[in-house]
Amino acid sequence: MRVLPLFFGLCWCALAGAATPPPAPTQASGAGAVFAAELQATANRLVGQALQGNTAYAIVESLATEVGPRLAGTAAEARAREWAVAKLQALGFSNVHIEPFEIPLWLRGVETAEVLSPYPQPLVITALGASPATAPEGVAGEVVAFASLAQLQRVPAGSLAGKIVFIDEMMTRTQDGSGYGVAVAKRLGAGVAAARAGASAALIRSVGTGRDRFPHTGLMQAADENAAPAVPAAALAAPDADQLRRLLGRGQPVSVKLVITPRSLPPAPSGNVIAEIPGSQAPAEIVLVGAHLDSWDLGTGAIDDGAGIGIVVGAAQLLLEHLPHKPRRTVRVVLFGAEEVGYGGARAYALEHAQELPRHVIAAESDFGTGDIWRFDTAVAPERIAAAEAIGELLRPLGIGPGSNSARGGSDLGYISKAGVPVVDLKQNGWDYFDLHHTANDTLDKIAPGDLDQNVAAYAAFIYLVADSEVSFR
Amino acid sequence: MRVLPLFFGLCWCALAGAATPPPAPTQASGAGAVFAAELQATANRLVGQALQGNTAYAIVESLATEVGPRLAGTAAEARAREWAVAKLQALGFSNVHIEPFEIPLWLRGVETAEVLSPYPQPLVITALGASPATAPEGVAGEVVAFASLAQLQRVPAGSLAGKIVFIDEMMTRTQDGSGYGVAVAKRLGAGVAAARAGASAALIRSVGTGRDRFPHTGLMQAADENAAPAVPAAALAAPDADQLRRLLGRGQPVSVKLVITPRSLPPAPSGNVIAEIPGSQAPAEIVLVGAHLDSWDLGTGAIDDGAGIGIVVGAAQLLLEHLPHKPRRTVRVVLFGAEEVGYGGARAYALEHAQELPRHVIAAESDFGTGDIWRFDTAVAPERIAAAEAIGELLRPLGIGPGSNSARGGSDLGYISKAGVPVVDLKQNGWDYFDLHHTANDTLDKIAPGDLDQNVAAYAAFIYLVADSEVSFR
Repeated sequence: MRVLPLFFGLCWCALAGAATPPPAPTQASGAGAVFAAELQATANRLVGQALQGNTAYAIVESLATEVGPRLAGTAAEARAREWAVAKLQALGFSNVHIEPFEIPLWLRGVETAEVLSPYPQPLVITALGASPATAPEGVAGEVVAFASLAQLQRVPAGSLAGKIVFIDEMMTRTQDGSGYGVAVAKRLGAGVAAARAGASAALIRSVGTGRDRFPHTGLMQAADENAAPAVPAAALAAPDADQLRRLLGRGQPVSVKLVITPRSLPPAPSGNVIAEIPGSQAPAEIVLVGAHLDSWDLGTGAIDDGAGIGIVVGAAQLLLEHLPHKPRRTVRVVLFGAEEVGYGGARAYALEHAQELPRHVIAAESDFGTGDIWRFDTAVAPERIAAAEAIGELLRPLGIGPGSNSARGGSDLGYISKAGVPVVDLKQNGWDYFDLHHTANDTLDKIAPGDLDQNVAAYAAFIYLVADSEVSFR
Repeated sequence: MRVLPLFFGLCWCALAGAATPPPAPTQASGAGAVFAAELQATANRLVGQALQGNTAYAIVESLATEVGPRLAGTAAEARAREWAVAKLQALGFSNVHIEPFEIPLWLRGVETAEVLSPYPQPLVITALGASPATAPEGVAGEVVAFASLAQLQRVPAGSLAGKIVFIDEMMTRTQDGSGYGVAVAKRLGAGVAAARAGASAALIRSVGTGRDRFPHTGLMQAADENAAPAVPAAALAAPDADQLRRLLGRGQPVSVKLVITPRSLPPAPSGNVIAEIPGSQAPAEIVLVGAHLDSWDLGTGAIDDGAGIGIVVGAAQLLLEHLPHKPRRTVRVVLFGAEEVGYGGARAYALEHAQELPRHVIAAESDFGTGDIWRFDTAVAPERIAAAEAIGELLRPLGIGPGSNSARGGSDLGYISKAGVPVVDLKQNGWDYFDLHHTANDTLDKIAPGDLDQNVAAYAAFIYLVADSEVSFR
């Protein structure tokens, strides 16, 4: 790790509270081998602008207030696309348009659960996305608890006829979100594994880190690899999973009843919203920054992923507003549809833009809430690591440390990353993210106006440096 | 305020982590004029026992797990009485019995709300207790916002025909709970005031201090003093009140639809559960400690008032277990029914025990969650203040400061206080109490096993000092 010239840190920090422009760099930094001093100075100015104020919070505020929940395939998601087109046009972006596609529509219905015996009482649940419905009158059975999905997967097929399984695995709180990767397995696989075991339904402890009484929804596998359907599956709020654990600990059989009536409907319209700052010299070369426009239905999607929308749109808007000239390359903002229900927008984008993908210089997505960025990870060709690290060095004064070259690139970048587009992760601190993720409590009040500024600053510098240079990461 | 001999503070603190008995007092403290040194030493030992461990947490754990929600008049509240009788008998109390009475039964139904225009989206609400129902298809109307109940009460009668009122008053967070007294006015009066104004329904910002998406229920006035009925009324979760405020701030008319279908049913059985430690020398003289057994229906009533049940039963149980002899006077534990729906148990107790009330030496109720006690207030005859303060002095090493002689005595003590029974408040810190109060999030996980120990210690000392002395507060 190189140490940056001190003036970077000083002037950026000073700018957080002052309106004077930063001094131009007076010597080449370590990044000088990749980015000219003039580019660095301009990136520096954008950072200063971002820290003095930007449009990110106003964008999230507008989306979370004027649209609110926007489940993929619904009229609300369509309103979000209209909102996005109007907002991006008003902010001065070019080529603002919707790229439509269709996705399967799943709509939540009634969802209730109760302990029938030995201690009758309601439980707070939410159906997992793509879950089949129970009968309207529900399904009842004795609960059989498992410490993990793997433990359930090991029971003999058909051995749990008439039972309701309960996977009571905790999620580990981590800064880097790695606890989610472990915990989400039970959400994805519980319904299929319970079906294989012959059970009538599956309950999981919510995939989340919070202690409050919010169940966390999220997508599940509706069928296994042989198209054998899953059983109805729902997540218990953490206090209800605790309660069920305590009840089972009393030593008597525990029976529960579960009623969930979601509907799986024919394919419905979704779409990606695209906006550009056309490149001045190499418009065919594309720097892509994305976030996802859809949300789960329970909250208003302020955190997931209104924050990301605010960050990437707010960062790109700084280039529009504050650069004396358009960058060399095209900056493309992609607001993906249908991320939560299976990456429909990501797939549609990769198909629609297959011819262009070789000209995508780099891509990044913001989809991890409001935490500050603390690490810069890349996934570029080995001989381009130095160029990627040069960006990382310029982000260091924002408190962003060096990472690895094993970035994943955000869930909407999976298809294009596989197709060879280099990606980076401006990795946010996710310590609290899974307290709110996929719950009704994902609402605007969880974001204070200045919370997104460091993210906007980092994205603005990143976008600008790549877009106004000739650096390649291929 | 007198300064206690230092050994009190030292030995009690030390005992919190050690199993050695405290040294006996070696000199009369300021309280010596009222309580003999032997009494003080015994109270001191009980405090030490409480801080080393007590049954309070296990009692709440059992109630919140094995009964859960226990709305007054329901089968769940009846199960809570059975639970209480079994628990109190098992702990060794005498004269354990139920004193039945009836109360009007109100049962929650469907409760949904949505913004119809200009930005359609759902809102999270809960019906207020005793609210009438809307039509099954709901009621819709333009929202008219008021900053307070008083502001709504000032509009001309009948002037808001077809409107839905929204009282958007915040509650102030306070240590002593005084913010509740102010904020609760809108909950009690919104439905009646909205009806008088001609509105179709009333929404209030939840009476609570939390930021999470839990609406707070609680009792409202179902009719005014002339028996004119209230309109249907519901509380918005704080994030939804914020959202509605923002939507109204956009300057366009905002229409909402509200569906609540609670049912008001004929009187149903409730009851108080009573248990005693019969006095050894003056059994007709009664020291009453209470808490309420019923809860609202949304949470499991761990905080409100499972904690209080744990504290007073746990404290009295210490006397049963650790005293070498029964106290002079009778210690009576009263677990009131139907507190939340209008103090039905309080009224029933006052009627049932009217003849005995002159022999009630003093009464205290624990009904404010899990916060430490920080002040000792009394409501005794002026010439008995010194005696009451002597108790307060003995509680000082637990971090409990002196208060005033204007105690209110807890909501279940209102009737007997009016009838002349002296009351005290062992006043808990309520800073966080109204984050959880009357919400679905009032669950056991909010209490850690040691959280109640200081309360149990204070109650044990208080109960013992009064019960084993001849002091009078009349």
